[in-house]
Amino acid sequence: MTHNTPSPRPASLTLLGAGAMGTALGRAWLAAGRAVTVWNRTPARAAALASEGAAVAATAAEAVAANRLVIACLLDDDSVGEALGDADLTGRDLVNLTTGTPAQGRARAAWATARGARFLDAGIMAVPPMIGTPESGAYVFYSGSRPLFEEHRDTLAVPAGTRYAGEDPGFAALYDVALLSAMSGLFAGITHAFALIGGEDVAPEDLAPLLASWLTAMTTAVHETAERLSSGDYTTGVVSNLAMQAAGNGTLLRTAGEQGVSAELLLPYMDLMARRVAAGHGDEDGAGLVGLLRLPRAAASRERGAGRA
Amino acid sequence: MTHNTPSPRPASLTLLGAGAMGTALGRAWLAAGRAVTVWNRTPARAAALASEGAAVAATAAEAVAANRLVIACLLDDDSVGEALGDADLTGRDLVNLTTGTPAQGRARAAWATARGARFLDAGIMAVPPMIGTPESGAYVFYSGSRPLFEEHRDTLAVPAGTRYAGEDPGFAALYDVALLSAMSGLFAGITHAFALIGGEDVAPEDLAPLLASWLTAMTTAVHETAERLSSGDYTTGVVSNLAMQAAGNGTLLRTAGEQGVSAELLLPYMDLMARRVAAGHGDEDGAGLVGLLRLPRAAASRERGAGRA
Ligand SMILES: NC(=O)c1ccc[n+]([C@@H]2O[C@H](COP(=O)([O-])OP(=O)(O)OC[C@H]3O[C@@H](n4cnc5c(N)ncnc54)[C@H](OP(=O)(O)O)[C@@H]3O)[C@@H](O)[C@H]2O)c1
Ligand SMILES: NC(=O)c1ccc[n+]([C@@H]2O[C@H](COP(=O)([O-])OP(=O)(O)OC[C@H]3O[C@@H](n4cnc5c(N)ncnc54)[C@H](OP(=O)(O)O)[C@@H]3O)[C@@H](O)[C@H]2O)c1
Repeated sequence: MTHNTPSPRPASLTLLGAGAMGTALGRAWLAAGRAVTVWNRTPARAAALASEGAAVAATAAEAVAANRLVIACLLDDDSVGEALGDADLTGRDLVNLTTGTPAQGRARAAWATARGARFLDAGIMAVPPMIGTPESGAYVFYSGSRPLFEEHRDTLAVPAGTRYAGEDPGFAALYDVALLSAMSGLFAGITHAFALIGGEDVAPEDLAPLLASWLTAMTTAVHETAERLSSGDYTTGVVSNLAMQAAGNGTLLRTAGEQGVSAELLLPYMDLMARRVAAGHGDEDGAGLVGLLRLPRAAASRERGAGRA
Repeated sequence: MTHNTPSPRPASLTLLGAGAMGTALGRAWLAAGRAVTVWNRTPARAAALASEGAAVAATAAEAVAANRLVIACLLDDDSVGEALGDADLTGRDLVNLTTGTPAQGRARAAWATARGARFLDAGIMAVPPMIGTPESGAYVFYSGSRPLFEEHRDTLAVPAGTRYAGEDPGFAALYDVALLSAMSGLFAGITHAFALIGGEDVAPEDLAPLLASWLTAMTTAVHETAERLSSGDYTTGVVSNLAMQAAGNGTLLRTAGEQGVSAELLLPYMDLMARRVAAGHGDEDGAGLVGLLRLPRAAASRERGAGRA
């Protein structure tokens, strides 16, 4: 076909995994009129999607044979290997929506390619209720085969927004984990803040909007951090340097003590600051702390990477 | 005067402290036409404000005698006590913009009141370059004497926005420290995220906007946390419970290891989650972690506080 008329037939796809996330994804595709063939290790769990119109395959291999586009959303990378152990992947487009690490994404890409498939790894930045609801802002990082991504982009865009993270199949997981790790720090800070008001005549609802607007304003610091990491200049024009921040930590720790709150969530970052200041870098911005987290063997591979963060 | 015509005379005030922050504050008041009498322990440091029109007092006591409204912006709470040791505070309105803890704010309020002054403690949510620039979003928490706050609100609003945090003189510091503590967690998370891309062919500037929008979206979680803390219901309608989050932590740790990054900034929060799950609360929201940070003696005083966070 050389003309651009959309095919009247809905694209069809295979879904491996009908857990909480797989079911949400399947629902979104069914609601959009896509033909879905589903397989789940425990057959009963595929019943919900079957009742909404999905065809159920008896084995993963059979499900893979049904469609060119195969979506896997299983527990972890090992389960992907197990489920697809005896499936014929020749000519398939495998999109792996199973959470994993960058190295797992790369290894799985090599594994799939060796078996004759094109491969795209993915990282889902959403929980199941956000799937199929564009207003939720849910999106998925994809990395790996760009032709696969371009060809199936419309289908992939049905359950959530799509963000292509590059040809390197490790990048979807890298971005996914970077964002989740940063969120973990954010939530730790929020947990400490709420603990501080425990026992005080302050309603959590009074603190919440203050926290939300303050933290939102502070996230913009990532842009300066990125610039400093790229330029390697951690000192020019620093307004609140590490020495000043480290001095201010005393008030944070003293307050925690007064309020009867364990400072365990704050201490490692304060310790990192103290180490950097003690090493003579008190005039630096916090960007100077990033390098301190790199373990020795990584420092070596970073040298090879020449100049990046 | 019973009419509402504004006084044609600019309000005058005394400023104790011409450090980085005191100088920024003084500049803002001078630029707004206020008459400022400044004192600084090291006289040379008051020269900049003097050249912009401030009167310089030779001693803190003399500076306090010059105006009813006295602003202190010194290093720490101890320096406030030292500086004002032999000043006559009778009839003065003392506004303490020196960073401290809630307990220091309360003790300083009692101290000032005993010496015949009205007192307002404050927490500055800004760095000096943000002072006097309304578009920066800079603001200051105030708590303590409401009449003092109302009477001098226009003057206090000159250098930065004003937020009255309540009659309890400890609340300005409590909110200040709560927000700074939460920010510390946020920055720790961001530091880890940037460390993860070290050695990869990813520019920090590519990660920054993703981090900014993700973290901004995630800060809205504070509202649900606040509601759960108030209701005490940590389980109803939880989408991503602690058990699921704890399971996901494995991928975060494994990625850190693969990328050669120390997980030291993430571990305490993960440990807290693991403890809560191990105690049989895997079905809870993260709000259930807040109470785990309360140290034993605080748990007792919380009982007395009856039901707050
Ligand atoms: N739920 C979320 O909030 C969320 C958010 C972002 C990303 N994700 C990711 O989405 C993926 C699926 O999550 P989920 O929430 O759907 O998990 P789930 O509800 O626990 O479902 C797990 C799925 O994996 C299957 N499975 C487990 N081990 C298997 C094996 N050895 N062989 C074949 N199938 C196996 C399960 O089959 P059985 O039914 O037979 O056990 C089930 O279909 C995970 O990688 C998760 O990290 C989830
Ligand atoms: N700078 C910021 O980004 C920032 C942000 C928010 C809040 N704050 C708070 O604002 C306050 C002032 O900070 P800053 O940045 O102006 O600090 P700074 O530049 O270090 O100035 C400290 C001031 O305190 C005075 N001082 C110190 N010890 C004293 C003592 N024993 N008796 C009398 N005066 C004494 C110093 O006088 P000398 O000149 O004689 O040493 C100087 O005026 C602090 O509480 C700080 O936490 C600052």
